[in-house]
Amino acid sequence: MTESAYPPISDQLAELDAAQEEGRRKMDWAAQHMPILEHVREEFVADKPFDGERIAMAMHVEAKTAILVETLAEGGAEVAVTGCNPLSTHDDVSAALDTHENITSYAKRGVDDQGYYDAIEAVIAHEPTITVDDGMDLVAAIHEDYPELIESIIGGAEETTTGVHRLRAMDDDGALDYPVFAVNDTPMKRLFDNVHGTGESSLASIAMTTNLSWASKNVVVSGFGYCGKGVAKKAAGQNANVIVTEVEPRRALEAHMEGYDVMPMAEAAEVGDVFLTTTGNRDVIVREHFEKMQDGVLLANAGHFDIEIDLEALDDLAADRYEARDGVEAYELEDGRRLNVVAEGRLVNLAAPVSLGHPVEVMDQSFGVQAACVRELVENGESYDAGVHDVPDELDKEIAEIKLEAEGVAFDSLTETQREYMGSWDHGT
Amino acid sequence: MTESAYPPISDQLAELDAAQEEGRRKMDWAAQHMPILEHVREEFVADKPFDGERIAMAMHVEAKTAILVETLAEGGAEVAVTGCNPLSTHDDVSAALDTHENITSYAKRGVDDQGYYDAIEAVIAHEPTITVDDGMDLVAAIHEDYPELIESIIGGAEETTTGVHRLRAMDDDGALDYPVFAVNDTPMKRLFDNVHGTGESSLASIAMTTNLSWASKNVVVSGFGYCGKGVAKKAAGQNANVIVTEVEPRRALEAHMEGYDVMPMAEAAEVGDVFLTTTGNRDVIVREHFEKMQDGVLLANAGHFDIEIDLEALDDLAADRYEARDGVEAYELEDGRRLNVVAEGRLVNLAAPVSLGHPVEVMDQSFGVQAACVRELVENGESYDAGVHDVPDELDKEIAEIKLEAEGVAFDSLTETQREYMGSWDHGT
Amino acid sequence: MTESAYPPISDQLAELDAAQEEGRRKMDWAAQHMPILEHVREEFVADKPFDGERIAMAMHVEAKTAILVETLAEGGAEVAVTGCNPLSTHDDVSAALDTHENITSYAKRGVDDQGYYDAIEAVIAHEPTITVDDGMDLVAAIHEDYPELIESIIGGAEETTTGVHRLRAMDDDGALDYPVFAVNDTPMKRLFDNVHGTGESSLASIAMTTNLSWASKNVVVSGFGYCGKGVAKKAAGQNANVIVTEVEPRRALEAHMEGYDVMPMAEAAEVGDVFLTTTGNRDVIVREHFEKMQDGVLLANAGHFDIEIDLEALDDLAADRYEARDGVEAYELEDGRRLNVVAEGRLVNLAAPVSLGHPVEVMDQSFGVQAACVRELVENGESYDAGVHDVPDELDKEIAEIKLEAEGVAFDSLTETQREYMGSWDHGT
Amino acid sequence: MTESAYPPISDQLAELDAAQEEGRRKMDWAAQHMPILEHVREEFVADKPFDGERIAMAMHVEAKTAILVETLAEGGAEVAVTGCNPLSTHDDVSAALDTHENITSYAKRGVDDQGYYDAIEAVIAHEPTITVDDGMDLVAAIHEDYPELIESIIGGAEETTTGVHRLRAMDDDGALDYPVFAVNDTPMKRLFDNVHGTGESSLASIAMTTNLSWASKNVVVSGFGYCGKGVAKKAAGQNANVIVTEVEPRRALEAHMEGYDVMPMAEAAEVGDVFLTTTGNRDVIVREHFEKMQDGVLLANAGHFDIEIDLEALDDLAADRYEARDGVEAYELEDGRRLNVVAEGRLVNLAAPVSLGHPVEVMDQSFGVQAACVRELVENGESYDAGVHDVPDELDKEIAEIKLEAEGVAFDSLTETQREYMGSWDHGT
Repeated sequence: MTESAYPPISDQLAELDAAQEEGRRKMDWAAQHMPILEHVREEFVADKPFDGERIAMAMHVEAKTAILVETLAEGGAEVAVTGCNPLSTHDDVSAALDTHENITSYAKRGVDDQGYYDAIEAVIAHEPTITVDDGMDLVAAIHEDYPELIESIIGGAEETTTGVHRLRAMDDDGALDYPVFAVNDTPMKRLFDNVHGTGESSLASIAMTTNLSWASKNVVVSGFGYCGKGVAKKAAGQNANVIVTEVEPRRALEAHMEGYDVMPMAEAAEVGDVFLTTTGNRDVIVREHFEKMQDGVLLANAGHFDIEIDLEALDDLAADRYEARDGVEAYELEDGRRLNVVAEGRLVNLAAPVSLGHPVEVMDQSFGVQAACVRELVENGESYDAGVHDVPDELDKEIAEIKLEAEGVAFDSLTETQREYMGSWDHGT
Repeated sequence: MTESAYPPISDQLAELDAAQEEGRRKMDWAAQHMPILEHVREEFVADKPFDGERIAMAMHVEAKTAILVETLAEGGAEVAVTGCNPLSTHDDVSAALDTHENITSYAKRGVDDQGYYDAIEAVIAHEPTITVDDGMDLVAAIHEDYPELIESIIGGAEETTTGVHRLRAMDDDGALDYPVFAVNDTPMKRLFDNVHGTGESSLASIAMTTNLSWASKNVVVSGFGYCGKGVAKKAAGQNANVIVTEVEPRRALEAHMEGYDVMPMAEAAEVGDVFLTTTGNRDVIVREHFEKMQDGVLLANAGHFDIEIDLEALDDLAADRYEARDGVEAYELEDGRRLNVVAEGRLVNLAAPVSLGHPVEVMDQSFGVQAACVRELVENGESYDAGVHDVPDELDKEIAEIKLEAEGVAFDSLTETQREYMGSWDHGT
Repeated sequence: MTESAYPPISDQLAELDAAQEEGRRKMDWAAQHMPILEHVREEFVADKPFDGERIAMAMHVEAKTAILVETLAEGGAEVAVTGCNPLSTHDDVSAALDTHENITSYAKRGVDDQGYYDAIEAVIAHEPTITVDDGMDLVAAIHEDYPELIESIIGGAEETTTGVHRLRAMDDDGALDYPVFAVNDTPMKRLFDNVHGTGESSLASIAMTTNLSWASKNVVVSGFGYCGKGVAKKAAGQNANVIVTEVEPRRALEAHMEGYDVMPMAEAAEVGDVFLTTTGNRDVIVREHFEKMQDGVLLANAGHFDIEIDLEALDDLAADRYEARDGVEAYELEDGRRLNVVAEGRLVNLAAPVSLGHPVEVMDQSFGVQAACVRELVENGESYDAGVHDVPDELDKEIAEIKLEAEGVAFDSLTETQREYMGSWDHGT
Repeated sequence: MTESAYPPISDQLAELDAAQEEGRRKMDWAAQHMPILEHVREEFVADKPFDGERIAMAMHVEAKTAILVETLAEGGAEVAVTGCNPLSTHDDVSAALDTHENITSYAKRGVDDQGYYDAIEAVIAHEPTITVDDGMDLVAAIHEDYPELIESIIGGAEETTTGVHRLRAMDDDGALDYPVFAVNDTPMKRLFDNVHGTGESSLASIAMTTNLSWASKNVVVSGFGYCGKGVAKKAAGQNANVIVTEVEPRRALEAHMEGYDVMPMAEAAEVGDVFLTTTGNRDVIVREHFEKMQDGVLLANAGHFDIEIDLEALDDLAADRYEARDGVEAYELEDGRRLNVVAEGRLVNLAAPVSLGHPVEVMDQSFGVQAACVRELVENGESYDAGVHDVPDELDKEIAEIKLEAEGVAFDSLTETQREYMGSWDHGT
């Protein structure tokens, strides 16, 4: 049992209004289960590495992200933050964050498109030296509308698969003008956040929204990347019968070798009970698929944007639409079949009413890498060219070591002889 | 795609007030995913087997149970119903049920002990001919306080492990004066409700209450009966490291052979991250265990009563107590360790704020057996002596067949030669 | 580390010929991994409970069974033993056993039917007071041909599901004239031997006979009893896609709820890559199924008798037959499809050339129960009527406790308060 | 059902001696289950891409590899082949191969070091234009002793993790003078061969060598790379309790997050029942570990070389050594504890007496990539510089597609809109 790095809850709550207090309480629970950020924060408080920096952030503003935001602010940065998805903001957390002297939060739940982009612009107005994105909205807005700011930006960090994908495309076009760390591509992020985080929280969100069971269900998982693997594995671990759809032959084969059924969506549509998209692409489930589905199916998305399920086409097809229960909209077809869309096809582990986002511990790992990347930008930013950069291996390893130590897990290290052996090539049989 | 046995939602909602409408909407969702009760109801509507009967029910009054209540009422019975747990009642469902001409609902969420027993008495005042229990409250109250009613009672049905356990003890004492079906002991109930239902919904409730992850957690499961097996298996399926505590050597060995760690609670207390009791017994986790636990552990119960975790002892031990988040009470010890109790130690898949109870489909199976038992009492009640009775195998099989048919699953049947072979004994090597 | 109950290997091997030495070496390996029999043997050596008894045994005569045979002999019994399957005998083990002064072994690998039954008669000629069967051959032969011996027989024990099934049928006909313990029906036997033993060893035998992989294979498991559950679970654990065929609706539903595909054999025949029968019944895979199978399928049996796959019908259907590899016979159909039968359709974990039978540890558990049953017959035989008897619960528990102790696994015991609670019925909510 | 690309078995066996016939029969079984090589071979027979090439191969010479050797020979190459491990050669397969007019086989089981290297030199004496290695023996020998041959070598392909590791070290030293494809590093090789192949066959080999069970065993897996992941997953799938040792923090954390126990070998040594090394490094289990182990443990290696377990140190420590059973050598310590080494610490899925090597299907995938690489060298060899090269993605994908088609598995392809979307970066929320 270690001494806590945080003040007692009673001190934390002094002088807060009701919403701020609620937000702070949420943050306190998260902080308790984020040993990596706790460790990093202690270091930042001591070293103040970010004195003089302005950090712009567009992230899901809820309790866990708030701990990252605060950790950066505690390191001396002036932080301006907004949401990266109109539905994922917790207003109370946003309010609690805003009470920090170094933090301004513009995030507000349920804003319309105008409000959403206004908030992004407000954040950019702080003239950031560093950007932290979850879907590259800041990078895009700055490059499109505020290119004059780029000169003073040291660099950025991007959280998601989808964001990194788009940044790489931008980079390939020669259109990315400052360095951005692809946090998503680290082993730490991919394995823990995508596999365990998305997998567990997507399924729990659906179960607690619908009161339905996984056992014996035909669960169609679209995409067998890290997210898809996580969803598939956790669903099988709840005794679902998993069906995978893929477009890449090696991933399709990998899923097949795991023992899952692999088939085109056009076939899966006929037999699936639950559909979960994780591709990062658009139009994964479309009209021709809706037409074949069984009565009562669930449709949900665990990919970044709400374009994987073609809801416009579904709306065209439907004779009626009604809220079947909180977080579930039923599209009733002419022939009476009901196709139930969970959380409006937005990412289900964030946007469903009961959803709490990724589990605290996996965000701790992911945000630990984020914090280390921001520190790296400040310390060695000049050594990175404009473009997408992999997170340096040593940073990623450091976070893993902090986590293992916090969990009380010891492991081996190479002996001198072993290290030498691994570097040599002149051994016989 | 079959024709629905239910009227369209718009017809169902006519002339209801807001609470009734909300309850009815919940029931409609459940009804859609309860193909067994749908099948049974069609039969009951046609045959009216319960004309003239009065059925008293003490069950968790929420959407799924409501479909059983309504199914029995549609079969001609006058039904009086109340809750079997002060925290599990959904008032809107209770209100919606009460609009049915054959149903009176006395269930109310959050009543105190007096209110709870008053409602049980109100149900008994209907002078039931049949009782349906979830925890044997009705059987106990009738035997203790209204023995004069027993003469006109055909029989009863009991849903839970714990209830059946207590009924058998009562029966052994010669103190059970009418026949009661042990619905809990059927293969259908044990395997599907206990294993899949309790397992999945307990874990999802905890995850969505705490925002924590299962991966890598030491999850201590107390009791390796059907519920414990379900919890253990589903937790392992979410990449938890499962630890089992048991008192019966063969169950302990069975858990060990599954690959789980087996140890006494006194050892498990030191390493567990999450504790889930499923024993049906009292004082499973007590003071000496609390004293050894790590900071931040979760304590939850998936057994019937809230006596598995000794909360009184924990309260004695605690220096402070506060609501850490909705559904979680933190007990802070002198040395600062926080032990977090989920849902007040009541059964977590029903009593946590986000909880929806057992998944709809598994309750459909369980309630299908209940409905068949009630029909059996009416048809052949006189052939059962006072005492606890196993559900006749044929009823249980019938429900399995209805379910498989509804899921579109075909299976083999014995040929004449095979049937003969299974009955013979004179074959050589 | 405990002191060994056995003499050093060098002493064990003195004065043995090559075959005996080979058999003894096999037995020594088994003995090392049979802690239950080691414990029981120490007790028997001290108490000599079987002095004056004659035990007739028809079992698979290989190393593990040999330790049971020797354990009984060390307890003072005169033991006569033969095989229960012409292909499962290890001649070297038979030879090694025969060197024990209290043991006569008639088992010989590969004998014809005449030789097989001659050996059974030779065993019976010892005029046993106790019989130990694996398939009820001794019970059947004694009742049919030597009824005069029954008077002096205290009782018997039967190892297998199939044997117990046939004994119960015989008992129902009033044709079983001495008490027989149904060792098969104990939790210890069913869960460990059937689930883990049959499951693991059947799959490993097939893999090491064929050099094929389980990952992604459609593995059709016929029968979802304990053996079938074990095979299904272990195959899924090797990333196979498991398909179950069943005739009992609740078992079919149970398999479905586990997430397995359930279908009639007529459908499974078209998609299966490997077929494994575990039903204990005959004609599970017949001509109409062979006709639909894919080229290159494997057919194997994990049930007691070689009648689950109708090899006569397959032979009729085949244009050619040849040994595809050691332990695999290819039946080539007219159109060139090859259906490969493993181990002649006999139980694959015993009869395949590479097979070693059930794992040592699970036989230790099963034989521990056997030994306890034989002791029970000697001590309390007169209290058992003619007929099939369940193994007394206390014996079974005793074996579980011995095993857990040997594995260093501690578990809880009920407190007085808990014991009282479990026996009471007057607790409220 | 497709027409076979191979001549009927009766034609294949004509004019062969007994050993050749036995080898040919083994090859025929393999060929039946290698759809990828069957497809590739048809193409090679038609195109004869290797006319005029001389291919030197040092591989495990058994049935599956033989199909690759023959496939290359059928493509027009003159092939000289020898073993890459003195214990893995099947002499009958070597003899059968040698009957092919384009093939000379020098492989012989059980040769001493001199014989082993003589065979390698004999192969090199054919003055190869292409080398195919499994452990880089050919590359090493050519660079050390026959540098004059390098000029005429187009390139090579290397099968194993270990070999590629050593090649990369050599490349880093600027000492690799022709291009070599790292077949090991392809997704196809890593995922299917390492994970499924090594995992399944190592465990089955140990089980069928020892007759022991996995259920409840503490299985210590050293290394959590692809092989280690496969072994861990398949062992857990047999109900073992898996313990992982690692030296890389992220892999250690990944294993921990899967739910496995992670600890240093010094701790694992005390609790393990079975130890399996998969690291590719030396001295993974050494004297200090042996000293702590329990009586009766199994020690086995699934990494390339027999240096992971320090057998010299174990021999020093042992009071006695004897063959406990075929394939198991017992090292008896002073205090009587027996540490049982399986297959002399050589790679257990190839070197144990019952072992058949990797499953046929996974070698088919791996060898499909090998064949495609050799074709690529012939077609485009001049475009590759000296050094280690990744297998071109398109080749790897091509093999996956061939495999899926052979298994009858269809999958989706990107629509034009989707392809465009994946390449764009200017989409909003």
